[in-house]
Amino acid sequence: MGQIVVKFGGTSVADIDRIRAAAATVKAEVERGHQVAVVVSAMAGVTNDLVALTRDANPLHDAREYDAVVATGEQATSGLLALCLQQMGVSARSWQGWQIPIRTDDVHGKARILGVETEDLASRLADNQVCVVAGFQGLGPDNRITTLGRGGSDTTAVALSAALSADRCDIYTDVDGVYTSDPRIVTRARKLDKITYEEMLEMASLGAKVLQTRSVQLAMGHSVPLQVLSSFDGAVGSDLPGTLVVAEEEIVEQEIVSGVTYSRDEAKITLLQVPDRPGVAAAIFGPLSDANVNVDMIVQNVSEDGSATDLTFTVSRGELDRALEVLEACKGELGFAASVPDANVVKLSVVGVGMRTHAGVAKRMFSALAEHNINILVISTSEIKISVLIAEEFTELALRALHTAYGLDAA
Amino acid sequence: MGQIVVKFGGTSVADIDRIRAAAATVKAEVERGHQVAVVVSAMAGVTNDLVALTRDANPLHDAREYDAVVATGEQATSGLLALCLQQMGVSARSWQGWQIPIRTDDVHGKARILGVETEDLASRLADNQVCVVAGFQGLGPDNRITTLGRGGSDTTAVALSAALSADRCDIYTDVDGVYTSDPRIVTRARKLDKITYEEMLEMASLGAKVLQTRSVQLAMGHSVPLQVLSSFDGAVGSDLPGTLVVAEEEIVEQEIVSGVTYSRDEAKITLLQVPDRPGVAAAIFGPLSDANVNVDMIVQNVSEDGSATDLTFTVSRGELDRALEVLEACKGELGFAASVPDANVVKLSVVGVGMRTHAGVAKRMFSALAEHNINILVISTSEIKISVLIAEEFTELALRALHTAYGLDAA
Repeated sequence: MGQIVVKFGGTSVADIDRIRAAAATVKAEVERGHQVAVVVSAMAGVTNDLVALTRDANPLHDAREYDAVVATGEQATSGLLALCLQQMGVSARSWQGWQIPIRTDDVHGKARILGVETEDLASRLADNQVCVVAGFQGLGPDNRITTLGRGGSDTTAVALSAALSADRCDIYTDVDGVYTSDPRIVTRARKLDKITYEEMLEMASLGAKVLQTRSVQLAMGHSVPLQVLSSFDGAVGSDLPGTLVVAEEEIVEQEIVSGVTYSRDEAKITLLQVPDRPGVAAAIFGPLSDANVNVDMIVQNVSEDGSATDLTFTVSRGELDRALEVLEACKGELGFAASVPDANVVKLSVVGVGMRTHAGVAKRMFSALAEHNINILVISTSEIKISVLIAEEFTELALRALHTAYGLDAA
Repeated sequence: MGQIVVKFGGTSVADIDRIRAAAATVKAEVERGHQVAVVVSAMAGVTNDLVALTRDANPLHDAREYDAVVATGEQATSGLLALCLQQMGVSARSWQGWQIPIRTDDVHGKARILGVETEDLASRLADNQVCVVAGFQGLGPDNRITTLGRGGSDTTAVALSAALSADRCDIYTDVDGVYTSDPRIVTRARKLDKITYEEMLEMASLGAKVLQTRSVQLAMGHSVPLQVLSSFDGAVGSDLPGTLVVAEEEIVEQEIVSGVTYSRDEAKITLLQVPDRPGVAAAIFGPLSDANVNVDMIVQNVSEDGSATDLTFTVSRGELDRALEVLEACKGELGFAASVPDANVVKLSVVGVGMRTHAGVAKRMFSALAEHNINILVISTSEIKISVLIAEEFTELALRALHTAYGLDAA
């Protein structure tokens, strides 16, 4: 017996049949004696439709009105899931963000949760009533509805788990766990039983779209055990069928590398003949930052004669044009000769907390790529990951090679 | 300069183009120096879709969850209209029922408004900000969303007008006013400039679907001047292009009859050979009332020999089968010989406060019908209306004849 929070994403509540399946899963947990709070997303497609309406109404929209409109998606699902649970004989009611309330700051459209007042919810849970919470939303200091930004329902679920000190937070989605790599490309990819918060964070930010970075950070900060599992195979969270995201010390048999990920949302810019003087990096990256262009990997070549050098860095593909505009505008001031863009690149990363204590991880990566004649354009590393930028055409080949090289292939 | 409440129905906010047209109308009022509160319905079709989802989720649905789901329709429209107004440079914000709050009782699904706390709204209006209020909903004593039942947005608009002591409440819909008869049938029907609350009430309950009975009652009780007008012809309420619903004393040139209406939602039942003894009417209509069958017109023939008589009454067409079942179940106890149903009937009514002071109104009706050989099956009257039940096939002929007989035809 315990208290669990379960969250169903948009595809898991896409229509009444799916909502009914979600209700059946919740009922199974209730029948095992658990107290269950449920967090729901909007039905798949609904949020996109609502966002399109707000854009059509006013392209430069007031985020407060945007929030009032798009929050209706989760509100509707919460009521519908409560109705399905009641239909199955399970005591349930819906809770909107403003009813609990889930208090947030006033940054409409991407608000941060400041606190969850769980008194009412906890007493309902103690009475064995399922609390169905509309995800993605809260109440701002102006008494208006706020939304937490895309993927915010995961954050709602984790914040609620932390506030309730729940035993586990199960994120039901359309995949049955976190894999060692993308199974659509690497057919021998394996589902991981456990992964650390740090690894999940790296993998989320490196392109694995299973969990939002923010919700993993929040779970790590509050030590909320997370589970990623599928709502499409009838699995019940308490059987632990998915991938558990936990603290490092809870994983006994830690592998050196847990996963190989990739991100196609990359573009490379090389600035030729950048004057090699102090402050030039700040002069380049300052204007990019001012224009909200995020720079990821950076390589500065050693200048041969001490006067000028080439500088290469990556930005997300959607920001490439903006980055080039900003650079052209400062070209005279910065004094570089030319900017050379390349959008046909991909970032591959190997991730694993085991790297901290094992040498030779990078060497194995470089060797495996070299064996396949794949040229590395840029390298960046952190304590638990190594990323390389390569030409996009090698994506699948490189992913499979690395997966094999680190011994991740399924038997 | 004044304070006005305007309400847009579902077809008037059916898509972003229609919402933009509604915003243009509101802007025109603001530019004339008026303070404007707007009440919006859900976009046409949305409420039906949401209701269908709740029924699919749980046919015997919890009205509290039903309310949480269906209230999202008006919430979305309120945000979208605020966005369109802002886009046109008009200061505006949305208000949900729970934010104002509009307090209601706890009868979820058909709640009654107990009070509207207008302090915040009034101060925003004084600052020339348009307040866009989600119609149809309020906050129950349990801190949950309530809805007011179908047509509830009209009620919201009138209640808000009363609470604000607004100068006028304009109901924008898809017709440009109240007509002397149905213009689809009576081509010479005229739009009325003014009509009394009492007449509007009779016409609403007799089949003219322009306004909900409840909102007219509320307007009458609080002396809120109502205007019915179209949102499809660019009309601005302050030009008084529609039909004003006002108190009797505000109409100087009162006609004897203001309108001729009809209702096809009628069915007639004749019970043959009902024993003519005290208490028999109660014995018949009691069980019907218990089964929630509303009986409208009743005629009891004079019994010839004092022992048995025929009894005729009308029910709404959708309740005919239920009524017959109830009667058959009590047949032995009631002692009538047979029940004869007839669903091919229609109720015609002439309505006018002028009847109070003019004789011969009924005679003119009966003569006009007789001239066209239309047989009257049942008659019922009130202070300001006369209704007759006739065979349905004569509907159009009778409507036109009466419209002419009372001098209502357009020149």
